[in-house]
Amino acid sequence: MESLKQRRTIRKYQQKDISAELLNDLLETAFRASTVGNMQTYSVVVTRDAARKAKLAPAHFHQPMVENAPVVLTFCIDLHRFSRWCECRKASPGYNNFEWFVTGAIDALLVAQTFCVAAEENGLGICYLGTTTYNPQMIIDALELPQLVFPIATITVGWPDECPNQVDRLPIEAIIHEETYHDYSAEDIDRLYAYKESLPENKQFVLENNKETLAQVFTDIRYTRKDSEAMSEALWKAMKAQGF
Amino acid sequence: MESLKQRRTIRKYQQKDISAELLNDLLETAFRASTVGNMQTYSVVVTRDAARKAKLAPAHFHQPMVENAPVVLTFCIDLHRFSRWCECRKASPGYNNFEWFVTGAIDALLVAQTFCVAAEENGLGICYLGTTTYNPQMIIDALELPQLVFPIATITVGWPDECPNQVDRLPIEAIIHEETYHDYSAEDIDRLYAYKESLPENKQFVLENNKETLAQVFTDIRYTRKDSEAMSEALWKAMKAQGF
Repeated sequence: MESLKQRRTIRKYQQKDISAELLNDLLETAFRASTVGNMQTYSVVVTRDAARKAKLAPAHFHQPMVENAPVVLTFCIDLHRFSRWCECRKASPGYNNFEWFVTGAIDALLVAQTFCVAAEENGLGICYLGTTTYNPQMIIDALELPQLVFPIATITVGWPDECPNQVDRLPIEAIIHEETYHDYSAEDIDRLYAYKESLPENKQFVLENNKETLAQVFTDIRYTRKDSEAMSEALWKAMKAQGF
Repeated sequence: MESLKQRRTIRKYQQKDISAELLNDLLETAFRASTVGNMQTYSVVVTRDAARKAKLAPAHFHQPMVENAPVVLTFCIDLHRFSRWCECRKASPGYNNFEWFVTGAIDALLVAQTFCVAAEENGLGICYLGTTTYNPQMIIDALELPQLVFPIATITVGWPDECPNQVDRLPIEAIIHEETYHDYSAEDIDRLYAYKESLPENKQFVLENNKETLAQVFTDIRYTRKDSEAMSEALWKAMKAQGF
């Protein structure tokens, strides 16, 4: 519990490898996570090779972790292996659709997060790259993913070379709803976001970006409607291209 | 690590409550999971009330865990709260699209799985209900979820009243790909699925269902193309109806 409570994302790593033995042990542990129908509709691509990392880098907007971490893991939705098994066993698979895209994503993400917990408990640091769903086609190409395989989460892993402060979280009453969803009044929003808005780094963020509110930094600069609509289209197109 | 390696899904629970203090502590711990842009695009609906569980039960095909577990948790994609904050802060949110449906799902699932790990470490047992993506609209109605909120995982939680055998997993070489995706030959499939196919319970499964292979039990009975195509359509429709 304590390591879960104290966790922080690590973006700087020591120049020190992760042994195949440790990595495989962590992955094997992660594969104990729940999976729909025990079908394990996921695969994990392990990137250690510098040339392959360089191929992945543009998909992740050249975030330095990709090339600096000893290991990059791409967790993929995988209905290909299961379908392949079916075809080898006189069975006709029907998993090339949206339901199984989502189910495979759930399977893959439970494994990814279990891996992260196990890795952190063993002293490793991890960072999720949100860029995975921005440029899926580039990742599909770089990792040579076949039909019915789709990248859903990328994690860089290594031995920590920094100890950043823990970032803020909303108070738990902002997230938890008893019995039914309770909508937020303007006063609720003021109260629940007060701490986040009061933080010096967030105030600095507003100033630097020449905005009036912190929310505007998100909507106008970090995560704009225009960008997310373009990404939605690219994501949808890549999903279709992979056969879902 | 040991509790992760030894985990098993628990479907039978003691008739004993989970204190609000413990539950909130576990959830607060889970909220430390990684989240895109620290936006926490998720909500958790806690169901303890018997009448509300009865309302949820049909959505989960009346699996007995829903009504027998002391607590049912529905983890939801939530772009509503963040958008509400934006609207209260003169910012124009653009999160009603497919990219944010998927990003919110990632956020929510990392939290759900971190919760499960923390709960199991504290002696609780959990079960994921795969039915959540089958009947999302019924869950949306039962929990009164507003626009831009969508149920992605349901977990029943309680003090274990059983200790089932651990279920099988594929050998790790079936899941891990070094550098690029390596496709499976027919011989690979034979080797990787041999253990699963050799298990007495799986042989029994084939016999009982009067099938020739285990794969046919999946494709013809448990997860048919016809069902998953209908579910894909319902899932897509519900996603659109919630404003994504």
